[in-house]
Amino acid sequence: MKKNVLIVGAGGVAQVVAHKCAQNNDILGDLHIASRTKSKCDVIVDGVREKGAMKVEGTFETHALDATKSADVADLIRKTGAEIVINVGTAFVNMHVLDGCIETGAAYIDTAIHEEPDKICETPPWYANYEWKKRDACAEKGVTAILGAGFDPGVVNAYARYAIDEFMDEVKSIDIVDINAGSHGRYFATNFDPEINFREFTGVVYYWEDGRWKEKSMFETGHEWDLPVVGKQMAYMSGHDEIHSLATNYPQADVRFWMGFGERYITVFTVLKNLGLLSEQPVTTAEGQEVVPLKVVKACLPDPKSLAPDYTGKTCIGDLVKGTKGGEEVEVFVYNVADHKEAYTEVGSQGISYTAGVPPVAAAMLIAQGDWDAKTMKNVEEMDPKPFFEVLDRIGLPTRVRIGDEERAWNA
Amino acid sequence: MKKNVLIVGAGGVAQVVAHKCAQNNDILGDLHIASRTKSKCDVIVDGVREKGAMKVEGTFETHALDATKSADVADLIRKTGAEIVINVGTAFVNMHVLDGCIETGAAYIDTAIHEEPDKICETPPWYANYEWKKRDACAEKGVTAILGAGFDPGVVNAYARYAIDEFMDEVKSIDIVDINAGSHGRYFATNFDPEINFREFTGVVYYWEDGRWKEKSMFETGHEWDLPVVGKQMAYMSGHDEIHSLATNYPQADVRFWMGFGERYITVFTVLKNLGLLSEQPVTTAEGQEVVPLKVVKACLPDPKSLAPDYTGKTCIGDLVKGTKGGEEVEVFVYNVADHKEAYTEVGSQGISYTAGVPPVAAAMLIAQGDWDAKTMKNVEEMDPKPFFEVLDRIGLPTRVRIGDEERAWNA
Repeated sequence: MKKNVLIVGAGGVAQVVAHKCAQNNDILGDLHIASRTKSKCDVIVDGVREKGAMKVEGTFETHALDATKSADVADLIRKTGAEIVINVGTAFVNMHVLDGCIETGAAYIDTAIHEEPDKICETPPWYANYEWKKRDACAEKGVTAILGAGFDPGVVNAYARYAIDEFMDEVKSIDIVDINAGSHGRYFATNFDPEINFREFTGVVYYWEDGRWKEKSMFETGHEWDLPVVGKQMAYMSGHDEIHSLATNYPQADVRFWMGFGERYITVFTVLKNLGLLSEQPVTTAEGQEVVPLKVVKACLPDPKSLAPDYTGKTCIGDLVKGTKGGEEVEVFVYNVADHKEAYTEVGSQGISYTAGVPPVAAAMLIAQGDWDAKTMKNVEEMDPKPFFEVLDRIGLPTRVRIGDEERAWNA
Repeated sequence: MKKNVLIVGAGGVAQVVAHKCAQNNDILGDLHIASRTKSKCDVIVDGVREKGAMKVEGTFETHALDATKSADVADLIRKTGAEIVINVGTAFVNMHVLDGCIETGAAYIDTAIHEEPDKICETPPWYANYEWKKRDACAEKGVTAILGAGFDPGVVNAYARYAIDEFMDEVKSIDIVDINAGSHGRYFATNFDPEINFREFTGVVYYWEDGRWKEKSMFETGHEWDLPVVGKQMAYMSGHDEIHSLATNYPQADVRFWMGFGERYITVFTVLKNLGLLSEQPVTTAEGQEVVPLKVVKACLPDPKSLAPDYTGKTCIGDLVKGTKGGEEVEVFVYNVADHKEAYTEVGSQGISYTAGVPPVAAAMLIAQGDWDAKTMKNVEEMDPKPFFEVLDRIGLPTRVRIGDEERAWNA
């Protein structure tokens, strides 16, 4: 049983996390939010108070924090008495925040894999390059660390585990499909930090087939999926965090990730990439200034947070899992459908931030209640998915299942 | 009669100017080339010497020069004894180089209109914002200044003057068409300084019709032209320097400029412009660095000079001039066709640099010989076109005329 939460980060996902923590502060206790720029935290907490989101009276304090300094993270954990840290800052700070948790014994939750600013797309499995090196340290100190507990990675890992446990003797393939059928009405925008977004797609597309890592180029392989609610949608095989843990835990299955992209995204991405504007390596201008092109592109694009008020439409994210049961072929699609407008009405954010921000709060609640307080490092598919689904059902991201012609709640 | 030439600039056009000056140093006298980075000048002069391009034995010296300082320009003019300055540096330095010439009495030639780094697309007529303000100063001191003496502006201004003088009582319209039907084999590149190139197309498209300035957006109006040698080609109405002097000298004519663009250029331009990456105004990155996006785009693109070895195909640039003669409608197309490969073989540059760099050398030769030594400021259509065409015929850019079904040399 743990309580008191420190949220690290103050972007669009952090805002959702803040609202959801507030809505469940009877379970979570005192709340704290910290980022490099404290005023961004103040804006978020003001929004929480305006919506009257705190379930019971309680603390929600804001702090300035340089999360690249693990000693500062540890100091703030001690000062706030937080026993659970939800890290939704940039992926560049993950290992520093994790170190702060290991030092203090606080539970750690994140939603994306660690990245180093000057490296893109390292050797698979990605988790082995950074996070898993700390697994023994977590186990020794009894520190709970739930890695990749957003939607994807996160909920989709639980979907895979559930589909396999519930419907199969043997799993053959896991295809994760992420479709945003919503519209923000801008010429172009990324739904989360442009720097992290583009970095996902500038490297090699690693996927797992026939028991080994294979490689493709981005946009090399497209497939039209026919999904609940959002209908027929084109998605492209992409590299993604969850492939790297699922392939390790289910090496017998093919594991692929498919991201939906509209024509506009592909055009813009292709132009920027071919011109070298998505590079994380500095260039020198004619005037002698050293600049990282990707950081300039980010500065020119809309703040993902600013998209929320005009965002309409729905997302559908799920796992098509194939296998056998009693010798028969079986195929099941486990999924969630979220609505941009509903997310904005509830927490002032668009649907992409909503789907990413609700699951780590569910994980925090499960740690607080003891269900997921693993006392070691875990990826989401290594935890029991059912209590996770139960909390998610209750706090805004219900899990559904399509099997044959039937579409139903997972526990119907 | 003037002699000794100082070339300002060391880009792709400057390289052509250097070679052409060397090939005609019997007329032009001592040669000098100066740029911020002296080593770029050294590379150019080494290339001239390797090709054995000097017609007669003579001087070709290189100098470091900050051309934004008119006093430094004047000092170098005095030191070198140059009586003719060919300014093919960036358009941002024009007024400073012109001031240096006015101070010392040297003749001034440029190939593009002056621009201020932080302003795009000022009020028409553009020349009135900067250059023409110095007309009285030139007249008083007897300083020859030939403005816009590249191909376009430049040769196309002479084409207009020639078509009107030779074939018409009255001119009704001048449509300048610039087609590059060549291929550099890269994903994307601009044929000259990307910063200047993009700035041409990010502003309002000003054109002159019915005796007044009108406005369009870039890529709003396209037209397929059927031209000699290059055939049918799509071109879009664009803003361009020569419209602003031709509309002043021929206010009774409609004056429009049409630039050919491939699909790739339009796609890249549209993406970059819509994202704000062509902005000349600084943005601030998340890390707090102030950067001008357009300068970063420039840093990422290929150096236009580097395109030359692989460039194939031809350019066709000309004026379709319509009017009446003895009450009959008359229409004539005056044009040049240039070949990228031939340009590279002769001077180590691609065709776009070649067409821009040969004409100012022809102008310098005419000043040296006295034909164009106007002792005041002139745009090219204010000078006699025939001696210009004679020199251009001889040094690599022959003028041709299409009238009815006939295509012939201008003086055939």
